[in-house]
Amino acid sequence: MDIKNRVSALKKEMEKENIDLYYIPTDDDHMSEYIADHFKVRQYMSGFTGSAGMLVIGKESILWADGRYYIQAERQLKNSGIKLYKMGMANVCSVFDYLVENSKNKVIGFDGKVVSADFVKRLKKATKDNGTSIKLDNDLVDRIWQDRPAMPDSEAFILNDKYTGNSIIDKIEMVRKDLRDNKCDALVVSALEDVAWLFNLRGDDIKCTPVNYAYALVTDKDVMLFIDEKKINDSVLNVLTKNKVLVFAYEKIADKLQELNGKVWVDTTKLNAYLFDKITGDIYDDASPIAMYRAIKNKTEIKCTKNAHVKDGVAMCKFIYWLKSNIGKIEMSEISVQNKLYELRAQMDDYLEPSFNTICAYEANAAMMHYSASEQSNAVLDTKGFLLVDSGGTYYDGTTDITRTICLGKIDDKDRLYYTTVLKAMLNLQGAKFLEGTTGANLDILARGVVWDLDIDYQCGTGHGVGHVLSVHEGPHSIRWSNNGPAMKYVLKEGMIVTDEPGIYLANDLGIRIENELLVVKGKKNEYGQFMYFEPLTMCPIDLDAVDVNIMSDRELKLLNDYHELVYKNVSPYLNDKEKLWLKMQTRKLVR
Amino acid sequence: MDIKNRVSALKKEMEKENIDLYYIPTDDDHMSEYIADHFKVRQYMSGFTGSAGMLVIGKESILWADGRYYIQAERQLKNSGIKLYKMGMANVCSVFDYLVENSKNKVIGFDGKVVSADFVKRLKKATKDNGTSIKLDNDLVDRIWQDRPAMPDSEAFILNDKYTGNSIIDKIEMVRKDLRDNKCDALVVSALEDVAWLFNLRGDDIKCTPVNYAYALVTDKDVMLFIDEKKINDSVLNVLTKNKVLVFAYEKIADKLQELNGKVWVDTTKLNAYLFDKITGDIYDDASPIAMYRAIKNKTEIKCTKNAHVKDGVAMCKFIYWLKSNIGKIEMSEISVQNKLYELRAQMDDYLEPSFNTICAYEANAAMMHYSASEQSNAVLDTKGFLLVDSGGTYYDGTTDITRTICLGKIDDKDRLYYTTVLKAMLNLQGAKFLEGTTGANLDILARGVVWDLDIDYQCGTGHGVGHVLSVHEGPHSIRWSNNGPAMKYVLKEGMIVTDEPGIYLANDLGIRIENELLVVKGKKNEYGQFMYFEPLTMCPIDLDAVDVNIMSDRELKLLNDYHELVYKNVSPYLNDKEKLWLKMQTRKLVR
Repeated sequence: MDIKNRVSALKKEMEKENIDLYYIPTDDDHMSEYIADHFKVRQYMSGFTGSAGMLVIGKESILWADGRYYIQAERQLKNSGIKLYKMGMANVCSVFDYLVENSKNKVIGFDGKVVSADFVKRLKKATKDNGTSIKLDNDLVDRIWQDRPAMPDSEAFILNDKYTGNSIIDKIEMVRKDLRDNKCDALVVSALEDVAWLFNLRGDDIKCTPVNYAYALVTDKDVMLFIDEKKINDSVLNVLTKNKVLVFAYEKIADKLQELNGKVWVDTTKLNAYLFDKITGDIYDDASPIAMYRAIKNKTEIKCTKNAHVKDGVAMCKFIYWLKSNIGKIEMSEISVQNKLYELRAQMDDYLEPSFNTICAYEANAAMMHYSASEQSNAVLDTKGFLLVDSGGTYYDGTTDITRTICLGKIDDKDRLYYTTVLKAMLNLQGAKFLEGTTGANLDILARGVVWDLDIDYQCGTGHGVGHVLSVHEGPHSIRWSNNGPAMKYVLKEGMIVTDEPGIYLANDLGIRIENELLVVKGKKNEYGQFMYFEPLTMCPIDLDAVDVNIMSDRELKLLNDYHELVYKNVSPYLNDKEKLWLKMQTRKLVR
Repeated sequence: MDIKNRVSALKKEMEKENIDLYYIPTDDDHMSEYIADHFKVRQYMSGFTGSAGMLVIGKESILWADGRYYIQAERQLKNSGIKLYKMGMANVCSVFDYLVENSKNKVIGFDGKVVSADFVKRLKKATKDNGTSIKLDNDLVDRIWQDRPAMPDSEAFILNDKYTGNSIIDKIEMVRKDLRDNKCDALVVSALEDVAWLFNLRGDDIKCTPVNYAYALVTDKDVMLFIDEKKINDSVLNVLTKNKVLVFAYEKIADKLQELNGKVWVDTTKLNAYLFDKITGDIYDDASPIAMYRAIKNKTEIKCTKNAHVKDGVAMCKFIYWLKSNIGKIEMSEISVQNKLYELRAQMDDYLEPSFNTICAYEANAAMMHYSASEQSNAVLDTKGFLLVDSGGTYYDGTTDITRTICLGKIDDKDRLYYTTVLKAMLNLQGAKFLEGTTGANLDILARGVVWDLDIDYQCGTGHGVGHVLSVHEGPHSIRWSNNGPAMKYVLKEGMIVTDEPGIYLANDLGIRIENELLVVKGKKNEYGQFMYFEPLTMCPIDLDAVDVNIMSDRELKLLNDYHELVYKNVSPYLNDKEKLWLKMQTRKLVR
């Protein structure tokens, strides 16, 4: 079936159920950012393969995609009959507002397992005077999706305490203290990363995110893990049992929620509406305490992460050296060099898997922020222009996320201006010093302002948190200028990791992004408060071949030179002589 | 009576009324920022003369003062028996939290006319389980204050439409449209500046704020002004009557509030608790629509304001020229040069009064952000160090607020570093370009970050709005990094004015502040949105004698040079030949 036929088939099912508007987010039962193929309903129904977006099927069918995907979505929606709404553009309403505005005497339906309780609560409230009916028990796409992939069934494994810094017992006690402090009787652990963190458990149910589909419940008496039992081998079961963790079938969570008494702590943005409705106890709705434990890395996690970044830098250096030495000499394409990078990372100690799908985008392809090279799009590399490589690895000791835009040969003045602008933006944020209490909304302008100066914007955040051997995108903090999101709410605390990845993207022309990961560390404490600054974690040279030194300030040059000195010091011991010589040159001190 | 005796006398009155904690804010019946002497109860009871601060008298007596006043408050509280709580310092609780924490089975009392309805609502909510009783009809200080100043009685006058751009009729219609749009039946106009704006009415009841004590009510049928009738002369009454404004005695507002039917729009942060309790209609609690009309200047206001700034710049240039030419030759003190500046401003066309008390502070005195020279503190000026002059004028065509820190002779390297840092900070914000939607919380770091880089903070906002022939401090927007105040809520809109005034203040050492007023204007509009930038309004050179050009970036130098070119162009036509020559030199192009 092509997309038009799928939409027609779905509309028939909608008619049967008397549904006027059918809402399809990009989510699984746990509100995960990345999802198993089983849950890729929005992709199946629209043909749009981006990692985020929402679809509404009704009289008109509309896909909402964010700035990373404007170009890609436009291409993929061609001939589908589905309109594109560009999120974030002026005069483009949100999917929520669209549903509300079109709700008058209508029936809105969706699969309540993939929609958060919070969304449904807000939708009910906003439509309460509109004669709207909301049906949340209809997974209609399941009826028409013949070859729908099964639920994943990867085996779980225990991540050693030497990588996590806290034992399972420690973590259960941390959570129980939070329950007591907030006078709660139970915590519903619904985010997959929270479950993984709590039990030092990892898996491979979702590509590039080392987790299993699972829930947990923590009460003062019991700790329960809900997971398909075939994922738990004897040795893992042994560890769990020793730690007094009771293991139940995945589906049992619904029953156990029903049995809970007292005050139940849930994060309604992370629990699906279907399960939320099972709870009969009092609701304490707040962010899971585990989110903050994950965000603030402990000493072991920091030490391990730094090690992972050195290894990652070694792989990246070997990659860029190979690329720069061989461009024009051997045939290269986006896919071939991306595979080369996968290979090089895989040679590093304790390597697990890519932390996300590599974005390897040549010239105009890089204008698509989250481009993924396919056989159709696969560009052949030449001795000119930029290759943007956004990649990362999950190692047993940490997760990495790095972008370098590499100059493959001839570039023009405009390319040089834009490249240097992005570099300045990245360095400006990396070099920030700030008082404790500062948020990502306060700092975003340091990077973005440099790009805004050219009347250009990158339509995404400047940075995000990074999980520890978990999802590469992690909250709750971030660097963005939005004044009503979490960037404004969550201050940057010592031990948090955040990416710094400004960019310039011009459709059909070019895409430049430079990304370092930064660790929030404490600086001087004095009568003004606790000063904080960033320590760069990423250890990889920034291509100097595209830098226009004349538009860099002394401060920016110093930031760049200091960073490069650090890179050489950390990475060079693991390179061969030729690579080392090359790195020395790549990290040379720039002066005007 | 000295302060200790006043506190004892008040405690006796508290005993009579069975009050445990007596709360004294710095407010009048209208929650004004600046208040008539009649309302200076906190000053009378504590001896602290700052423009802001709160006092609680109880078992212990505590004054809360903000960062501008730490040093001054410490001095003035000496021997008073009153403790100082430094607001904004880590581990210093707010006065609100203090009252709540000490409310268990206690009686909290205050004069409900000088406390906002919002404060009382929050206090009642926060103490509801504490067995607290709140008494809000006790102006106890009035009983012990023998020579309390009377209510002011200045005559009102009409500000011509040529200065305001909108007639009274226009403005009433604007407000009535807001009432209809929000389905409200009446607007309670309680802020003095709102009343003044609505009727194009000005007065002199509060020093440096050209308003009268008055209230207004707007309904679909009636417009009522409540003001002491002796303040309204026949010609003003004639204008008001022509515009169908009904004039009542000031106190009549209480009765008229009681008579209101339907949905009543009040801003509970701007209406006192005593009057709020009179309202029997339904409450619609939101910021007054007039606040935003005042904040966003119309074309006439902008044109007039620019003219006022040129005149103000002429007075400032004449002042700095005189100061620099005569320092070391004639005797000068903080007070004498401040008087000279008052004189020079008074010679300008359409001058009304100072827009606030001039801060003229030499060397270490300038470390007190809101220092006011007294006969005791009055420093003699010498050919060394810095003189900080923060001043402004109210003209019929606009209000100004400017700070220059002037180098009087020898300074050391540290002085030069700090001066240049403050200049860089000011220029960095002035040079910002940003997308519409940006708030002051997003931009604050542009100025503050430069100071933070030296492990120093200025413990106040970077900027505030400025009224049009009204209060020199105006909301709702501001430039500050706080993530839960209005700086985060109110985006910077075209036509808003905001000050840009970073500083460095080192106790007993020095104080440096450089302040320009900026106008928010529209830049390019493209696929990314509407870009905005700042146009400087202030027209006065920045002292180059203290600049270390070596620590300024090319961008900062260009911003400075461009600004100085503008100053020369606008101001020089109004100077004599000697002054003009001097200004040419003061605005010379700096290069490295």
